[in-house]
Amino acid sequence: MEFTSQTSADGVVQRLFTTGDIPGALWSPADATDDRPLILLGHGGGQHRLFPGVVGRARWYVNGGGFAVAAIDLPGHGERPKTDQDVEFIARFRDRVAQGLPVSDELAEFHADLAARAVPEWQSTLDALWTVDGVAAGGPVGYAGVSMGTAVGVPLVAAEPRITAAVFGLNGGGQLPELAARITIPIEFVLQWDDEMIAREDVLALYDAFASKEKSLHVNPGRHTEMPLYEVESSLRFFARHLI
Amino acid sequence: MEFTSQTSADGVVQRLFTTGDIPGALWSPADATDDRPLILLGHGGGQHRLFPGVVGRARWYVNGGGFAVAAIDLPGHGERPKTDQDVEFIARFRDRVAQGLPVSDELAEFHADLAARAVPEWQSTLDALWTVDGVAAGGPVGYAGVSMGTAVGVPLVAAEPRITAAVFGLNGGGQLPELAARITIPIEFVLQWDDEMIAREDVLALYDAFASKEKSLHVNPGRHTEMPLYEVESSLRFFARHLI
Repeated sequence: MEFTSQTSADGVVQRLFTTGDIPGALWSPADATDDRPLILLGHGGGQHRLFPGVVGRARWYVNGGGFAVAAIDLPGHGERPKTDQDVEFIARFRDRVAQGLPVSDELAEFHADLAARAVPEWQSTLDALWTVDGVAAGGPVGYAGVSMGTAVGVPLVAAEPRITAAVFGLNGGGQLPELAARITIPIEFVLQWDDEMIAREDVLALYDAFASKEKSLHVNPGRHTEMPLYEVESSLRFFARHLI
Repeated sequence: MEFTSQTSADGVVQRLFTTGDIPGALWSPADATDDRPLILLGHGGGQHRLFPGVVGRARWYVNGGGFAVAAIDLPGHGERPKTDQDVEFIARFRDRVAQGLPVSDELAEFHADLAARAVPEWQSTLDALWTVDGVAAGGPVGYAGVSMGTAVGVPLVAAEPRITAAVFGLNGGGQLPELAARITIPIEFVLQWDDEMIAREDVLALYDAFASKEKSLHVNPGRHTEMPLYEVESSLRFFARHLI
Protein backbone atom coordinates (compact mmCIF):
# COMPACT_ATOMS: atom_id res chain seq x y z
CA MET A 1 0.00 0.00 0.00
CA GLU A 2 1.40 3.34 -1.09
CA PHE A 3 0.11 6.80 -0.25
CA THR A 4 0.34 9.13 -3.23
CA SER A 5 -1.14 12.39 -1.97
CA GLN A 6 -2.51 14.06 1.15
CA THR A 7 -4.80 17.09 1.32
CA SER A 8 -6.85 18.57 4.12
CA ALA A 9 -10.03 20.68 4.12
CA ASP A 10 -12.64 21.61 6.74
CA GLY A 11 -11.39 19.20 9.36
CA VAL A 12 -10.99 16.20 7.05
CA VAL A 13 -7.71 14.74 5.79
CA GLN A 14 -7.96 12.96 2.40
CA ARG A 15 -5.16 10.52 1.56
CA LEU A 16 -5.05 8.85 -1.86
CA PHE A 17 -3.38 5.48 -2.04
CA THR A 18 -2.86 2.44 -4.24
CA THR A 19 -2.82 -1.21 -3.21
CA GLY A 20 -1.38 -3.13 -6.14
CA ASP A 21 -3.28 -1.64 -9.11
CA ILE A 22 -6.30 -0.58 -7.02
CA PRO A 23 -6.62 3.17 -6.42
CA GLY A 24 -8.10 4.08 -3.04
CA ALA A 25 -8.91 7.05 -0.85
CA LEU A 26 -8.90 7.35 2.93
CA TRP A 27 -10.60 10.15 4.85
CA SER A 28 -10.08 10.79 8.57
CA PRO A 29 -10.47 13.59 11.12
CA ALA A 30 -7.69 16.18 10.82
CA ASP A 31 -7.46 16.40 14.60
CA ALA A 32 -7.46 12.63 15.30
CA THR A 33 -4.69 11.48 17.60
CA ASP A 34 -6.06 7.93 18.06
CA ASP A 35 -7.24 5.09 15.83
CA ARG A 36 -10.81 5.32 14.51
CA PRO A 37 -13.39 2.69 13.53
CA LEU A 38 -13.41 2.20 9.77
CA ILE A 39 -16.26 2.52 7.27
CA LEU A 40 -15.83 1.19 3.72
CA LEU A 41 -17.79 3.04 1.00
CA GLY A 42 -18.90 1.18 -2.11
CA HIS A 43 -19.56 3.52 -5.03
CA GLY A 44 -22.44 3.13 -7.50
CA GLY A 45 -22.39 2.19 -11.19
CA GLY A 46 -20.55 4.70 -13.36
CA GLN A 47 -19.10 6.35 -10.23
CA HIS A 48 -15.67 6.12 -8.59
CA ARG A 49 -13.88 6.70 -5.27
CA LEU A 50 -13.78 10.49 -5.71
CA PHE A 51 -17.33 10.89 -7.04
CA PRO A 52 -18.99 13.84 -5.24
CA GLY A 53 -21.62 11.63 -3.58
CA VAL A 54 -18.89 9.31 -2.25
CA VAL A 55 -16.67 12.11 -0.95
CA GLY A 56 -19.72 13.88 0.54
CA ARG A 57 -20.79 10.77 2.42
CA ALA A 58 -17.21 10.16 3.59
CA ARG A 59 -16.89 13.71 4.93
CA TRP A 60 -20.29 13.34 6.66
CA TYR A 61 -19.09 10.20 8.49
CA VAL A 62 -15.73 11.76 9.41
CA ASN A 63 -17.14 15.07 10.63
CA GLY A 64 -20.30 13.65 12.21
CA GLY A 65 -18.92 10.50 13.79
CA GLY A 66 -15.14 10.78 13.82
CA PHE A 67 -14.79 7.69 11.62
CA ALA A 68 -12.02 6.74 9.23
CA VAL A 69 -13.62 6.14 5.81
CA ALA A 70 -12.18 4.43 2.73
CA ALA A 71 -13.25 3.91 -0.88
CA ILE A 72 -11.66 2.21 -3.88
CA ASP A 73 -12.25 2.40 -7.63
CA LEU A 74 -14.00 -0.83 -8.57
CA PRO A 75 -12.93 -2.71 -11.74
CA GLY A 76 -13.79 -0.69 -14.87
CA HIS A 77 -14.53 2.46 -12.85
CA GLY A 78 -12.63 5.67 -12.09
CA GLU A 79 -8.96 5.30 -12.98
CA ARG A 80 -9.27 1.59 -13.80
CA PRO A 81 -9.40 0.31 -17.38
CA LYS A 82 -12.64 -1.03 -18.81
CA THR A 83 -12.62 -4.52 -20.36
CA ASP A 84 -14.27 -5.11 -23.74
CA GLN A 85 -17.07 -6.77 -21.79
CA ASP A 86 -17.52 -3.62 -19.64
CA VAL A 87 -17.71 -1.40 -22.72
CA GLU A 88 -20.19 -3.75 -24.37
CA PHE A 89 -22.37 -3.91 -21.26
CA ILE A 90 -22.47 -0.11 -20.87
CA ALA A 91 -23.49 0.36 -24.51
CA ARG A 92 -26.22 -2.31 -24.24
CA PHE A 93 -27.41 -0.90 -20.89
CA ARG A 94 -27.69 2.68 -22.23
CA ASP A 95 -29.51 1.41 -25.31
CA ARG A 96 -32.10 -0.41 -23.24
CA VAL A 97 -32.60 2.57 -20.89
CA ALA A 98 -33.02 4.88 -23.90
CA GLN A 99 -35.61 2.50 -25.34
CA GLY A 100 -37.42 2.24 -22.00
CA LEU A 101 -36.72 -1.52 -21.79
CA PRO A 102 -36.26 -3.28 -18.43
CA VAL A 103 -32.62 -3.58 -17.35
CA SER A 104 -32.76 -5.57 -14.13
CA ASP A 105 -31.66 -8.93 -15.58
CA GLU A 106 -28.74 -7.31 -17.43
CA LEU A 107 -27.76 -5.41 -14.29
CA ALA A 108 -27.92 -8.49 -12.05
CA GLU A 109 -25.65 -10.44 -14.41
CA PHE A 110 -23.14 -7.59 -14.80
CA HIS A 111 -23.15 -6.93 -11.06
CA ALA A 112 -22.54 -10.59 -10.16
CA ASP A 113 -19.54 -10.69 -12.46
CA LEU A 114 -18.21 -7.40 -11.07
CA ALA A 115 -18.71 -8.59 -7.48
CA ALA A 116 -16.67 -11.74 -8.13
CA ARG A 117 -13.74 -9.51 -9.13
CA ALA A 118 -14.31 -6.81 -6.48
CA VAL A 119 -14.78 -8.88 -3.30
CA PRO A 120 -11.14 -10.09 -3.09
CA GLU A 121 -9.99 -6.54 -3.89
CA TRP A 122 -11.99 -5.13 -0.97
CA GLN A 123 -10.60 -7.86 1.28
CA SER A 124 -6.96 -7.11 0.43
CA THR A 125 -7.69 -3.38 0.75
CA LEU A 126 -9.05 -4.02 4.24
CA ASP A 127 -5.91 -6.02 5.09
CA ALA A 128 -3.84 -3.00 4.01
CA LEU A 129 -6.06 -0.41 5.76
CA TRP A 130 -5.63 -2.24 9.06
CA THR A 131 -1.89 -1.47 8.87
CA VAL A 132 -2.50 2.30 8.56
CA ASP A 133 -1.98 4.70 11.45
CA GLY A 134 -5.33 6.20 12.51
CA VAL A 135 -7.39 3.15 11.49
CA ALA A 136 -8.47 0.87 14.35
CA ALA A 137 -6.99 -2.49 13.29
CA GLY A 138 -9.07 -5.40 14.56
CA GLY A 139 -11.88 -2.99 15.42
CA PRO A 140 -15.45 -2.91 14.11
CA VAL A 141 -15.81 -2.18 10.38
CA GLY A 142 -18.85 -0.79 8.59
CA TYR A 143 -19.75 -0.98 4.91
CA ALA A 144 -22.05 1.45 3.09
CA GLY A 145 -23.00 1.09 -0.54
CA VAL A 146 -26.29 1.26 -2.42
CA SER A 147 -27.25 0.18 -5.95
CA MET A 148 -24.04 -1.31 -7.44
CA GLY A 149 -22.48 -0.73 -4.00
CA THR A 150 -25.00 -3.26 -2.66
CA ALA A 151 -24.43 -5.69 -5.54
CA VAL A 152 -20.77 -5.81 -4.44
CA GLY A 153 -21.37 -5.26 -0.73
CA VAL A 154 -23.75 -8.16 -0.10
CA PRO A 155 -21.28 -10.78 -1.44
CA LEU A 156 -18.47 -8.95 0.39
CA VAL A 157 -20.26 -8.98 3.75
CA ALA A 158 -21.37 -12.60 3.24
CA ALA A 159 -17.69 -13.53 2.79
CA GLU A 160 -16.07 -11.13 5.26
CA PRO A 161 -16.57 -11.55 9.03
CA ARG A 162 -14.57 -8.38 9.79
CA ILE A 163 -17.51 -6.22 8.61
CA THR A 164 -19.95 -5.86 11.53
CA ALA A 165 -22.64 -3.40 10.30
CA ALA A 166 -23.79 -2.44 6.81
CA VAL A 167 -25.94 0.05 4.90
CA PHE A 168 -27.39 -1.36 1.69
CA GLY A 169 -30.26 -0.66 -0.70
CA LEU A 170 -31.54 0.26 -4.17
CA ASN A 171 -30.90 -3.23 -5.44
CA GLY A 172 -32.21 -6.80 -5.36
CA GLY A 173 -32.69 -9.87 -7.51
CA GLY A 174 -30.05 -12.13 -9.02
CA GLN A 175 -27.76 -13.84 -6.53
CA LEU A 176 -28.33 -11.26 -3.77
CA PRO A 177 -31.19 -12.82 -1.73
CA GLU A 178 -29.36 -16.14 -1.44
CA LEU A 179 -26.21 -14.39 -0.19
CA ALA A 180 -28.22 -12.11 2.12
CA ALA A 181 -29.65 -15.16 3.86
CA ARG A 182 -26.13 -15.84 5.23
CA ILE A 183 -25.80 -12.33 6.69
CA THR A 184 -26.68 -11.72 10.35
CA ILE A 185 -25.05 -8.33 11.13
CA PRO A 186 -27.21 -5.19 11.69
CA ILE A 187 -28.43 -3.73 8.39
CA GLU A 188 -29.94 -0.38 7.40
CA PHE A 189 -31.52 -0.70 3.97
CA VAL A 190 -32.92 1.99 1.66
CA LEU A 191 -35.54 1.68 -1.07
CA GLN A 192 -36.77 4.37 -3.46
CA TRP A 193 -40.52 3.82 -3.85
CA ASP A 194 -40.55 4.98 -7.50
CA ASP A 195 -37.27 3.32 -8.53
CA GLU A 196 -37.33 3.08 -12.33
CA MET A 197 -34.32 0.74 -12.51
CA ILE A 198 -34.87 -2.01 -9.93
CA ALA A 199 -38.25 -3.68 -9.35
CA ARG A 200 -39.77 -2.77 -5.96
CA GLU A 201 -40.60 -6.42 -5.27
CA ASP A 202 -36.95 -7.42 -5.79
CA VAL A 203 -35.75 -4.77 -3.34
CA LEU A 204 -38.35 -5.78 -0.74
CA ALA A 205 -37.40 -9.43 -1.24
CA LEU A 206 -33.73 -8.64 -0.64
CA TYR A 207 -34.58 -6.80 2.60
CA ASP A 208 -36.70 -9.79 3.61
CA ALA A 209 -33.86 -12.22 2.88
CA PHE A 210 -31.31 -10.90 5.40
CA ALA A 211 -31.00 -13.18 8.42
CA SER A 212 -30.13 -10.18 10.61
CA LYS A 213 -32.06 -9.69 13.82
CA GLU A 214 -31.70 -5.92 13.44
CA LYS A 215 -32.54 -4.75 9.94
CA SER A 216 -34.35 -1.51 9.16
CA LEU A 217 -35.81 -0.69 5.77
CA HIS A 218 -36.18 3.02 4.96
CA VAL A 219 -38.49 3.80 2.05
CA ASN A 220 -38.78 7.23 0.45
CA PRO A 221 -40.65 8.48 -2.60
CA GLY A 222 -38.74 9.27 -5.76
CA ARG A 223 -36.60 7.67 -8.44
CA HIS A 224 -33.39 5.62 -8.18
CA THR A 225 -31.05 8.58 -7.66
CA GLU A 226 -33.37 10.72 -5.52
CA MET A 227 -32.64 9.32 -2.05
CA PRO A 228 -33.07 12.17 0.46
CA LEU A 229 -29.97 13.45 2.24
CA TYR A 230 -31.47 12.68 5.66
CA GLU A 231 -30.88 8.99 4.90
CA VAL A 232 -27.13 9.68 4.94
CA GLU A 233 -27.61 11.34 8.33
CA SER A 234 -29.63 8.31 9.46
CA SER A 235 -26.90 5.93 8.31
CA LEU A 236 -24.34 7.89 10.34
CA ARG A 237 -26.43 7.35 13.48
CA PHE A 238 -26.77 3.67 12.55
CA PHE A 239 -22.97 3.33 12.35
CA ALA A 240 -22.54 5.34 15.56
CA ARG A 241 -24.87 2.85 17.30
CA HIS A 242 -22.98 -0.19 16.04
CA LEU A 243 -19.34 0.75 15.52
CA ILE A 244 -18.49 3.09 18.40
CA MET B 1 -59.70 23.67 30.37
CA GLU B 2 -58.76 22.97 33.95
CA PHE B 3 -55.41 21.84 35.34
CA THR B 4 -55.83 19.30 38.12
CA SER B 5 -52.24 18.40 39.08
CA GLN B 6 -48.64 19.30 38.40
CA THR B 7 -45.57 17.16 39.05
CA SER B 8 -41.98 17.40 37.90
CA ALA B 9 -39.24 14.80 37.42
CA ASP B 10 -35.90 14.71 35.59
CA GLY B 11 -36.38 18.01 33.79
CA VAL B 12 -39.98 17.37 32.68
CA VAL B 13 -43.13 18.99 34.11
CA GLN B 14 -46.28 16.87 33.81
CA ARG B 15 -49.58 18.72 34.10
CA LEU B 16 -52.86 16.78 34.10
CA PHE B 17 -55.92 18.61 32.81
CA THR B 18 -59.50 18.12 31.70
CA THR B 19 -61.28 19.80 28.79
CA GLY B 20 -64.99 19.15 29.31
CA ASP B 21 -65.05 15.42 30.16
CA ILE B 22 -61.78 14.65 28.34
CA PRO B 23 -58.79 13.91 30.62
CA GLY B 24 -55.49 15.14 29.23
CA ALA B 25 -51.81 15.41 30.11
CA LEU B 26 -49.27 18.02 29.07
CA TRP B 27 -45.49 17.55 29.36
CA SER B 28 -42.99 20.38 28.92
CA PRO B 29 -39.38 21.24 29.81
CA ALA B 30 -39.04 22.23 33.49
CA ASP B 31 -36.64 25.01 32.54
CA ALA B 32 -38.70 26.45 29.65
CA THR B 33 -39.20 30.21 29.79
CA ASP B 34 -40.66 30.51 26.28
CA ASP B 35 -43.43 28.84 24.24
CA ARG B 36 -42.59 25.49 22.64
CA PRO B 37 -43.86 23.75 19.48
CA LEU B 38 -46.51 21.19 20.35
CA ILE B 39 -46.65 17.46 19.63
CA LEU B 40 -49.91 15.54 20.12
CA LEU B 41 -49.56 11.88 21.11
CA GLY B 42 -52.28 9.41 20.12
CA HIS B 43 -52.25 6.30 22.32
CA GLY B 44 -52.85 2.77 21.06
CA GLY B 45 -55.78 0.41 21.63
CA GLY B 46 -56.26 -0.54 25.29
CA GLN B 47 -53.83 2.21 26.32
CA HIS B 48 -54.41 5.69 27.76
CA ARG B 49 -52.71 9.08 28.18
CA LEU B 50 -50.53 7.89 31.09
CA PHE B 51 -49.58 4.51 29.60
CA PRO B 52 -45.81 3.94 30.05
CA GLY B 53 -45.11 3.96 26.31
CA VAL B 54 -46.98 7.27 25.93
CA VAL B 55 -45.26 8.96 28.88
CA GLY B 56 -41.89 7.58 27.76
CA ARG B 57 -42.30 8.98 24.23
CA ALA B 58 -43.50 12.32 25.67
CA ARG B 59 -40.46 12.60 27.94
CA TRP B 60 -38.18 11.68 25.00
CA TYR B 61 -39.61 14.55 22.91
CA VAL B 62 -39.44 17.02 25.81
CA ASN B 63 -35.89 16.15 26.87
CA GLY B 64 -34.52 15.55 23.37
CA GLY B 65 -36.20 18.37 21.46
CA GLY B 66 -37.59 20.81 24.02
CA PHE B 67 -41.13 20.23 22.77
CA ALA B 68 -44.43 20.59 24.62
CA VAL B 69 -46.27 17.26 24.32
CA ALA B 70 -49.93 16.45 25.01
CA ALA B 71 -52.06 13.31 25.16
CA ILE B 72 -55.73 12.64 25.93
CA ASP B 73 -57.69 9.57 26.94
CA LEU B 74 -59.67 8.54 23.86
CA PRO B 75 -63.33 7.47 24.25
CA GLY B 76 -63.60 4.18 26.16
CA HIS B 77 -59.95 4.35 27.26
CA GLY B 78 -58.15 5.33 30.49
CA GLU B 79 -60.50 7.22 32.79
CA ARG B 80 -63.32 7.35 30.25
CA PRO B 81 -66.35 5.05 30.44
CA LYS B 82 -66.77 2.24 27.94
CA THR B 83 -70.04 2.03 25.98
CA ASP B 84 -71.86 -1.31 25.66
CA GLN B 85 -70.54 -1.35 22.10
CA ASP B 86 -66.94 -0.92 23.35
CA VAL B 87 -67.32 -3.80 25.81
CA GLU B 88 -68.85 -6.01 23.14
CA PHE B 89 -66.10 -5.21 20.66
CA ILE B 90 -63.31 -5.94 23.14
CA ALA B 91 -64.85 -9.31 24.05
CA ARG B 92 -65.28 -10.25 20.38
CA PHE B 93 -61.76 -9.02 19.52
CA ARG B 94 -60.15 -11.04 22.33
CA ASP B 95 -62.12 -14.11 21.33
CA ARG B 96 -60.93 -13.90 17.74
CA VAL B 97 -57.30 -13.30 18.77
CA ALA B 98 -57.48 -16.30 21.15
CA GLN B 99 -58.86 -18.45 18.31
CA GLY B 100 -56.18 -17.19 15.91
CA LEU B 101 -58.80 -15.64 13.60
CA PRO B 102 -58.06 -12.51 11.53
CA VAL B 103 -59.10 -9.27 13.21
CA SER B 104 -58.35 -6.59 10.65
CA ASP B 105 -61.94 -6.06 9.44
CA GLU B 106 -63.25 -5.84 13.02
CA LEU B 107 -60.45 -3.44 13.95
CA ALA B 108 -61.03 -1.19 10.92
CA GLU B 109 -64.72 -0.87 11.73
CA PHE B 110 -64.16 -0.21 15.43
CA HIS B 111 -61.38 2.28 14.67
CA ALA B 112 -63.49 4.21 12.15
CA ASP B 113 -66.26 4.59 14.71
CA LEU B 114 -63.79 5.64 17.41
CA ALA B 115 -62.11 8.15 15.08
CA ALA B 116 -65.46 9.80 14.33
CA ARG B 117 -65.84 10.47 18.07
CA ALA B 118 -62.18 11.31 18.76
CA VAL B 119 -61.36 13.77 15.95
CA PRO B 120 -63.56 16.61 17.28
CA GLU B 121 -62.20 15.92 20.78
CA TRP B 122 -58.61 16.33 19.57
CA GLN B 123 -59.60 19.52 17.77
CA SER B 124 -61.17 21.11 20.85
CA THR B 125 -58.20 19.94 22.93
CA LEU B 126 -55.87 21.68 20.48
CA ASP B 127 -57.99 24.86 20.74
CA ALA B 128 -57.54 24.69 24.52
CA LEU B 129 -53.83 23.83 24.40
CA TRP B 130 -53.16 26.91 22.30
CA THR B 131 -54.34 29.06 25.23
CA VAL B 132 -51.79 27.49 27.62
CA ASP B 133 -48.63 29.30 28.69
CA GLY B 134 -45.58 27.47 27.33
CA VAL B 135 -47.35 26.14 24.21
CA ALA B 136 -46.60 28.02 20.97
CA ALA B 137 -50.12 29.08 19.86
CA GLY B 138 -50.37 29.35 16.08
CA GLY B 139 -47.08 27.51 15.76
CA PRO B 140 -46.32 24.22 14.04
CA VAL B 141 -48.02 21.14 15.54
CA GLY B 142 -46.92 17.52 15.24
CA TYR B 143 -48.96 14.36 15.75
CA ALA B 144 -47.50 10.94 16.64
CA GLY B 145 -49.61 7.84 16.98
CA VAL B 146 -49.27 4.30 15.68
CA SER B 147 -51.77 1.44 15.48
CA MET B 148 -55.04 2.85 16.91
CA GLY B 149 -53.17 6.17 17.15
CA THR B 150 -52.94 6.09 13.35
CA ALA B 151 -56.58 5.03 12.93
CA VAL B 152 -57.53 8.23 14.76
CA GLY B 153 -54.58 10.34 13.56
CA VAL B 154 -55.10 9.95 9.81
CA PRO B 155 -58.71 11.29 9.93
CA LEU B 156 -57.56 13.97 12.37
CA VAL B 157 -54.72 15.19 10.14
CA ALA B 158 -56.96 15.01 7.05
CA ALA B 159 -59.41 17.33 8.84
CA GLU B 160 -56.98 19.57 10.72
CA PRO B 161 -54.69 21.99 8.88
CA ARG B 162 -52.98 23.06 12.11
CA ILE B 163 -51.05 19.77 12.20
CA THR B 164 -47.97 20.14 9.98
CA ALA B 165 -45.97 16.89 10.46
CA ALA B 166 -47.04 13.41 11.57
CA VAL B 167 -45.67 10.04 12.62
CA PHE B 168 -47.98 7.13 11.78
CA GLY B 169 -47.81 3.38 11.27
CA LEU B 170 -48.80 -0.15 12.27
CA ASN B 171 -52.18 0.23 10.61
CA GLY B 172 -53.93 0.32 7.25
CA GLY B 173 -57.10 -0.76 5.47
CA GLY B 174 -60.66 0.46 6.01
CA GLN B 175 -61.18 4.16 5.40
CA LEU B 176 -57.52 5.09 5.95
CA PRO B 177 -56.06 5.06 2.40
CA GLU B 178 -58.85 7.29 1.09
CA LEU B 179 -58.24 9.82 3.88
CA ALA B 180 -54.45 9.58 3.49
CA ALA B 181 -54.77 10.63 -0.15
CA ARG B 182 -55.85 14.07 1.13
CA ILE B 183 -52.77 14.47 3.33
CA THR B 184 -49.72 16.34 2.01
CA ILE B 185 -47.70 17.11 5.17
CA PRO B 186 -44.37 15.30 5.86
CA ILE B 187 -44.93 11.80 7.23
CA GLU B 188 -42.71 9.27 9.01
CA PHE B 189 -44.38 5.88 8.92
CA VAL B 190 -43.44 2.64 10.72
CA LEU B 191 -44.25 -0.94 9.77
CA GLN B 192 -43.44 -4.12 11.69
CA TRP B 193 -42.47 -6.72 9.09
CA ASP B 194 -43.97 -9.61 11.10
CA ASP B 195 -47.09 -7.77 12.32
CA GLU B 196 -49.58 -10.45 13.35
CA MET B 197 -52.51 -8.03 13.63
CA ILE B 198 -52.49 -5.87 10.49
CA ALA B 199 -51.80 -7.28 7.01
CA ARG B 200 -48.45 -6.09 5.59
CA GLU B 201 -50.07 -5.24 2.24
CA ASP B 202 -52.59 -2.95 4.00
CA VAL B 203 -49.83 -1.08 5.81
CA LEU B 204 -47.77 -0.69 2.62
CA ALA B 205 -50.89 0.47 0.77
CA LEU B 206 -51.54 3.12 3.43
CA TYR B 207 -47.96 4.41 3.13
CA ASP B 208 -48.40 4.48 -0.64
CA ALA B 209 -51.67 6.43 -0.35
CA PHE B 210 -50.31 9.55 1.35
CA ALA B 211 -50.07 12.48 -1.08
CA SER B 212 -47.10 13.86 0.87
CA LYS B 213 -43.96 14.76 -1.07
CA GLU B 214 -41.86 13.78 1.98
CA LYS B 215 -42.90 10.45 3.44
CA SER B 216 -40.49 7.90 4.88
CA LEU B 217 -41.44 4.32 5.67
CA HIS B 218 -39.34 2.58 8.34
CA VAL B 219 -39.68 -1.19 8.40
CA ASN B 220 -38.27 -3.36 11.19
CA PRO B 221 -38.56 -7.07 11.93
CA GLY B 222 -40.83 -8.24 14.71
CA ARG B 223 -44.45 -8.35 15.78
CA HIS B 224 -47.00 -5.56 16.23
CA THR B 225 -45.71 -4.37 19.60
CA GLU B 226 -41.99 -4.93 18.98
CA MET B 227 -41.05 -1.62 17.31
CA PRO B 228 -37.43 -0.82 18.24
CA LEU B 229 -36.79 2.17 20.49
CA TYR B 230 -34.53 3.80 17.89
CA GLU B 231 -37.69 4.55 15.89
CA VAL B 232 -38.79 6.88 18.70
CA GLU B 233 -35.38 8.58 18.47
CA SER B 234 -35.81 8.79 14.68
CA SER B 235 -39.26 10.36 15.06
CA LEU B 236 -37.78 13.00 17.38
CA ARG B 237 -35.31 13.99 14.66
CA PHE B 238 -38.17 14.01 12.15
CA PHE B 239 -40.11 16.45 14.34
CA ALA B 240 -36.98 18.52 14.97
CA ARG B 241 -36.56 18.86 11.17
CA HIS B 242 -40.14 19.95 10.62
CA LEU B 243 -41.40 21.73 13.73
CA ILE B 244 -38.42 23.76 14.96
